[in-house]
Amino acid sequence: MKTVGIIGGMGPLATIDLFNKIVTMTNAKCDNDHIHILIDNNTKIPDRTSFILGNGENPTYELEKSAKHLEEIGADFLVIPCNTAHYFYNNIKNGVNIEVINMIEETAKSIASSGIKKVGLLSTTGTIKAKVYDSIFEKYDIELIKPNEYGQSVIMDLIYGIKEGREVSDKKNMMDILNYLKEQGAFYIILGCTELPIAVKMLEIEGNFIDPTSILARVAVSKAI
Amino acid sequence: MKTVGIIGGMGPLATIDLFNKIVTMTNAKCDNDHIHILIDNNTKIPDRTSFILGNGENPTYELEKSAKHLEEIGADFLVIPCNTAHYFYNNIKNGVNIEVINMIEETAKSIASSGIKKVGLLSTTGTIKAKVYDSIFEKYDIELIKPNEYGQSVIMDLIYGIKEGREVSDKKNMMDILNYLKEQGAFYIILGCTELPIAVKMLEIEGNFIDPTSILARVAVSKAI
Repeated sequence: MKTVGIIGGMGPLATIDLFNKIVTMTNAKCDNDHIHILIDNNTKIPDRTSFILGNGENPTYELEKSAKHLEEIGADFLVIPCNTAHYFYNNIKNGVNIEVINMIEETAKSIASSGIKKVGLLSTTGTIKAKVYDSIFEKYDIELIKPNEYGQSVIMDLIYGIKEGREVSDKKNMMDILNYLKEQGAFYIILGCTELPIAVKMLEIEGNFIDPTSILARVAVSKAI
Repeated sequence: MKTVGIIGGMGPLATIDLFNKIVTMTNAKCDNDHIHILIDNNTKIPDRTSFILGNGENPTYELEKSAKHLEEIGADFLVIPCNTAHYFYNNIKNGVNIEVINMIEETAKSIASSGIKKVGLLSTTGTIKAKVYDSIFEKYDIELIKPNEYGQSVIMDLIYGIKEGREVSDKKNMMDILNYLKEQGAFYIILGCTELPIAVKMLEIEGNFIDPTSILARVAVSKAI
């Protein structure tokens, strides 16, 4: 069985969410049947969106440090439960000698294999501006539909509300955004920030959501076992 | 701010429980306000109770290895979310140069400071047989009341049910044990296995429960900040 390394802390609740998904997706009868997981919940990693928007510190150094530490103590491959951090994917990958699973690519693969050609994307403004999803999804011939500018600002408020540990409650605005995406032909929506599955659960919104964290957990479990 | 190291995997759900408690107990407005946490969810650690009962591998080597790894990559102090593993506390402590918080001692301190003189103890048979709680609680002048032999076997089934990921449902037997402890004068009950807070929540049992994981989380947060 292989050891999974999680570069976490972006944010901590999203890290717990991935950890929990890996554990509950594992078919285990006792502690020893479970997957060995190493986690660096590195809350010193500077905010990814702030850097991409030009007003924050570069998170590359801390991301690379976490990756190296996890490799040093025995991780066989790495996962990163943060969509925006995938902007720095190549740096992280080049800094270690072990595989780094690309959550965005795994999500694209999974969507393409279902025959879906058009999806909505909810994510941070950093992920949108840095086009984290765009080139990979183009390769898999999947069209991305994004919220308008106002919708995007609502999504950012929601994400940073979760990061603050606030009880989020803006259901009406969120429903408007989902309707807007649907009008553009997006019947499936990617929750493209690891805080969004938590937000959607809190707001009790059901929908055709695609959760990259769940896809990543499934890939991690099958690669580990 | 100090970095917390968690020697985990005993079991994984108990590790998630502690991780989650530390994160939600932290007063944070953004990712960077949160505590840097390193976790080794080391599911290779042999079963503690089996070893104590004389029919299993010695877990000391893996426990010490996890402790050293966490120290190597920057942990300032360590915590162990497993009651039975505290039987090996001195080995773990002597293998590193950083502080290892003793969850059992912190629980005793917290109970003593509330003026409680008698408590019930629910835990694994390993914890009971190895007298993990006894000498520390004696030092704080707190009397421990334990279930009878049948009650103890019910508790073990419950704990290993949670470890297996089973939906536990044996509410009647659990209520009988709690009544038995109450008859012996124990109005407060220590959930002395990290799987038990999860079991009690599943069974929807309310009571005067003392949760060492919560006490440990609170100590870890105040030591880190």
